[in-house]
Amino acid sequence: MVREYALPEQFVTQNFDLSWRDGSYSIQSNVDHMEAARHLDIAGVDIYHDTQDELDGVTIALAGDLARSMKQNNYLVIETQAQSILTSDKQKLHYPGQLRLQAYSHLASGANMVGYWHWHSIHNSYETYWKGVLSHDMQPNPTYHEVARISQELKRLNDDLIGLKKHNEVAIYFSNESLSALEAFPISSGLDYGDIVRQYYELLYKQNIPCDFIDHTVSESQLRKYKALIVPPLYSASDEELKRLNHFVAEGGHILYSFKSGFTDENVQVRRDLMPGVLREVVGANYQQFNSIEVMPLVVSGEILPGGSANHWMELLTPTNGEVLATYQHDYWGDYAAIVSNTYGKGEVTYLGTWPSGELLSSLLMRMMKRASVKSPDHAGAPVTVRAGTNRKGKNIVYLLNYSNEAVSFPCEDRLVRELISGNSYRKGELLEIAPWDLMILEQSN
Amino acid sequence: MVREYALPEQFVTQNFDLSWRDGSYSIQSNVDHMEAARHLDIAGVDIYHDTQDELDGVTIALAGDLARSMKQNNYLVIETQAQSILTSDKQKLHYPGQLRLQAYSHLASGANMVGYWHWHSIHNSYETYWKGVLSHDMQPNPTYHEVARISQELKRLNDDLIGLKKHNEVAIYFSNESLSALEAFPISSGLDYGDIVRQYYELLYKQNIPCDFIDHTVSESQLRKYKALIVPPLYSASDEELKRLNHFVAEGGHILYSFKSGFTDENVQVRRDLMPGVLREVVGANYQQFNSIEVMPLVVSGEILPGGSANHWMELLTPTNGEVLATYQHDYWGDYAAIVSNTYGKGEVTYLGTWPSGELLSSLLMRMMKRASVKSPDHAGAPVTVRAGTNRKGKNIVYLLNYSNEAVSFPCEDRLVRELISGNSYRKGELLEIAPWDLMILEQSN
Amino acid sequence: MVREYALPEQFVTQNFDLSWRDGSYSIQSNVDHMEAARHLDIAGVDIYHDTQDELDGVTIALAGDLARSMKQNNYLVIETQAQSILTSDKQKLHYPGQLRLQAYSHLASGANMVGYWHWHSIHNSYETYWKGVLSHDMQPNPTYHEVARISQELKRLNDDLIGLKKHNEVAIYFSNESLSALEAFPISSGLDYGDIVRQYYELLYKQNIPCDFIDHTVSESQLRKYKALIVPPLYSASDEELKRLNHFVAEGGHILYSFKSGFTDENVQVRRDLMPGVLREVVGANYQQFNSIEVMPLVVSGEILPGGSANHWMELLTPTNGEVLATYQHDYWGDYAAIVSNTYGKGEVTYLGTWPSGELLSSLLMRMMKRASVKSPDHAGAPVTVRAGTNRKGKNIVYLLNYSNEAVSFPCEDRLVRELISGNSYRKGELLEIAPWDLMILEQSN
Repeated sequence: MVREYALPEQFVTQNFDLSWRDGSYSIQSNVDHMEAARHLDIAGVDIYHDTQDELDGVTIALAGDLARSMKQNNYLVIETQAQSILTSDKQKLHYPGQLRLQAYSHLASGANMVGYWHWHSIHNSYETYWKGVLSHDMQPNPTYHEVARISQELKRLNDDLIGLKKHNEVAIYFSNESLSALEAFPISSGLDYGDIVRQYYELLYKQNIPCDFIDHTVSESQLRKYKALIVPPLYSASDEELKRLNHFVAEGGHILYSFKSGFTDENVQVRRDLMPGVLREVVGANYQQFNSIEVMPLVVSGEILPGGSANHWMELLTPTNGEVLATYQHDYWGDYAAIVSNTYGKGEVTYLGTWPSGELLSSLLMRMMKRASVKSPDHAGAPVTVRAGTNRKGKNIVYLLNYSNEAVSFPCEDRLVRELISGNSYRKGELLEIAPWDLMILEQSN
Repeated sequence: MVREYALPEQFVTQNFDLSWRDGSYSIQSNVDHMEAARHLDIAGVDIYHDTQDELDGVTIALAGDLARSMKQNNYLVIETQAQSILTSDKQKLHYPGQLRLQAYSHLASGANMVGYWHWHSIHNSYETYWKGVLSHDMQPNPTYHEVARISQELKRLNDDLIGLKKHNEVAIYFSNESLSALEAFPISSGLDYGDIVRQYYELLYKQNIPCDFIDHTVSESQLRKYKALIVPPLYSASDEELKRLNHFVAEGGHILYSFKSGFTDENVQVRRDLMPGVLREVVGANYQQFNSIEVMPLVVSGEILPGGSANHWMELLTPTNGEVLATYQHDYWGDYAAIVSNTYGKGEVTYLGTWPSGELLSSLLMRMMKRASVKSPDHAGAPVTVRAGTNRKGKNIVYLLNYSNEAVSFPCEDRLVRELISGNSYRKGELLEIAPWDLMILEQSN
Repeated sequence: MVREYALPEQFVTQNFDLSWRDGSYSIQSNVDHMEAARHLDIAGVDIYHDTQDELDGVTIALAGDLARSMKQNNYLVIETQAQSILTSDKQKLHYPGQLRLQAYSHLASGANMVGYWHWHSIHNSYETYWKGVLSHDMQPNPTYHEVARISQELKRLNDDLIGLKKHNEVAIYFSNESLSALEAFPISSGLDYGDIVRQYYELLYKQNIPCDFIDHTVSESQLRKYKALIVPPLYSASDEELKRLNHFVAEGGHILYSFKSGFTDENVQVRRDLMPGVLREVVGANYQQFNSIEVMPLVVSGEILPGGSANHWMELLTPTNGEVLATYQHDYWGDYAAIVSNTYGKGEVTYLGTWPSGELLSSLLMRMMKRASVKSPDHAGAPVTVRAGTNRKGKNIVYLLNYSNEAVSFPCEDRLVRELISGNSYRKGELLEIAPWDLMILEQSN
């Protein structure tokens, strides 16, 4: 309908909202992201997030990567916070510099626009305390001055920063169907599908491993580009969907599967098979029984991490071909496997029969990255967040984002780079210094 | 209506459910147990309960004793858990051996059938995670193998175990009317009528004192069989009902009364008398005022237990003929009695003006049992749960149930017994050994 | 309508209820106290409150001062608790003496009647446990005997105690409009308008500084009588209302303003001004931005109190003419003022941009009292609550109320006083001794 009335120079977009649960944004259940995005020309997104000492850039990056993945292209941040948001009792004003750091972080994910909600604070009604760039007094204020600085810098740097492209080797394979099914059949009162997506994403983010988001609508050619997939509980999926993933592994792909994957079909009917159903052979293990838990110690193969615990859910896995990476430390169920790994065709699968504690999960993720030969980004060792891509001029652009209250400094890794905001050049080994909540943008020499 | 269509060989039953509050089953308010049971041929009951380390057999015993009391006869366990029950986030799989221990525990209370909910796990809809004997895969599994073992044993032992009869000297005298009235006029946010029933029952269970459940519909001949009654708050009762209990005491019976007993009549109208109204003379004390409390120390008569506290509710008792067993330790109310005891006719009453802490309550219960000359069961000193009765062959059958993660052993108390499952015989002093979550069934020589 | 049918000797009254939130009574939002009171002949009030160890007299005094302020005259306590109140699970019986202390405390605020809810406890329905002077047994009991003693004493002392008048120099200036607006736009989940009124009142009460309650309907002549006003967040107020308060200061008055005052107009539309809008010049500071906080340390001017914290809400104040009394201790916002003081015309304003911790708030209040030359009451140094006034005989009457479990004694401050209950006389320096939950009433010599 909209297209009937649209002029040729007009385009269709929409501001997607992510779901906010206990202060953490993640995939939401009330819209099928990829299906809805098919009808847009340009993806758009609203990104609201914690601030002050809780500002860590994760939500900006996650929401940005998801928005970029919707059309596999640059996107618009249609709304984001200017001053404080939410109701009058939850007002959190950004620290000086945070708004600017946020704006560049959006660009670093591939945004082509940053729009604030909104120009000036409104004087009546429910959103009175969703504060705009201007306060109710309509006068310049510290936030206004920070926005003015951002605008002037971006005007100058526009051609270097706009249209950033990414070529990622890793994707999070999500499922709106599984998310909805697991709302009806929850995992645990302390862990839901969105938490798992968020925690996987955070672990990648902290390791500076860039990723895309894909789902079952991914094209064959795009799927083939990835070296490794991370699959949150794929609770509801058709036989065809699971077989396609089996094929991805057979052809050399790596997959990290989460518990409950393959349990039900596309109609949320439980499979009449040994679990995990169609995935059984690829996983190299099966199970018939399971148990809700709070925390249970694991006996983990020394190669990985000597320790760690099982959380929320345990499947009593019996390995067939798979290698056992961890077993449960339990009087009666100590013989069952908790985590298995299996080679299948040219590829490999890691299957989590439980939700491992953070360090162990990180260790398992990094084990897969290494075995899948996923490249580390430049400057990944720096005490800052690294986000990178290729700009329209074909140059490699590396954002170094200091999400902390401390100034940081570390040596330049490149032979020669130009820092775009200051215009300064740095040679290998020269010290890069970044103030609290500040950033650098390095243009690498080709 | 059902009877009109029933064939001569058919019978009427019904699966009663107990009320579950914070993981504890007790009497429920939404049905008048005894009145409803009048219309059945055979009592039936659904018994679901905690498992794993929380399995203690109390709910199985309580629900079984109540079901047996409904028709004063053997009953059917129409539903009980096979694998885990409840929603997907609360799955608790029994430990090996627990299912078998449970099945025998049902028989030990007088059950003539144990039916599982259900044969196989269902593949759709709300009860997807009420797991059957089979998982969704429809294959044999550890639970199936345990059920198979139970079936084979019971087939063999059927004639020895079925139709177990009990002849108990103690009854819990409950009141659906008081339960409902105390939902409208609650005792405390931390204690309700069901908690009190449950806590009384647990104390008896831990002392291996068997009991029946009765209410105001009990026949004169049955009432006369009991040496001692335990009465949870009999908040709503007619003058006639209270006078009948007074008469029971006059004739030599013992009663432990709880606070609030006698406060209102059968229409929940408060009596215009010094409290506890019609019970005043039998109790040997009265009160005009009361007070909600959390915890308050008691000064307890040395004969009973040197310590203990008042909880939830305090009545400011003034003794008349009664002996004071405890007073409140309080600056302003230290002269009032908290617990009194009184002989009346040939019998005796203990009245609790407050809810004593656990050890003190147990001590008061055991004091009444001793003064009422209630017999201890055989093997009551063993570190296991003891449940006993007479089978159809007229033999005394004693179940020794090991509700723990530890193996236990203790000497045989009888001159000569036959253990029915193994067929072994034991003489006095020979060691009986029971594995974790296992049991013995002793047939005593007459 | 009522007046059409009223006989000449009849009068119109109404039992106002205060709002109870988490056990603290305060101003309520569902009635405009002053507007409603216009239609009455005599103000009436229901006063229910905590008892036992929580009894401190604050609610009796606050509700009494508010009721007296409604008609600037004596009032009736139409309902107050006899024995325990509330539902069956929240019964709290007063300690011996507390009921009598309460009755005299009502008179000490200017009550001309104390009516109990109710004569006898009712035997049915929801208020079964709102216990009357008599219990359900309709017999004399300790509460009855205490009421009888009160009645006999009051009969004897009637002419000395009835019709007590107050001439206070301080008023709490409240706003039903702001209270309602701040329910829609809350300050914090832990602090609302009623809490602030209550906390201001408590601080005055603990310092024995008597006060009235006024709102925007106060007459010019009455307003002029006050030396100092305490203004809880005056969030919604017309320009006229604010200008009148500015004029009060210009003419020599003192005002303690709370954050958010002046933020919106009488239609809860936010002002398009630097905040606090119309109050800006009087306050001597302004702000554009603010922030929700839990606790933040303050740097406080040594003259006042070396320490204290900001709570719930912080306005980033920039002083113009005002003197800075406190700044925020914060990495980024340490230059902003938290509390300022400003002379304006012949008067002075203290403005709180945040909610100070208790001791600091008390210190700020007392600073204003001193600078406004507010008189301390007689016996204000005694370890008891002091409430005073002038009786119909023109005598000064001082109530010394011992709200504690301890007996207290202290020397007489007056040259010669008569204690009305005992009839004893005391000379300066003679020891006044008061038992726990007891009192003295001193008639001072003119």
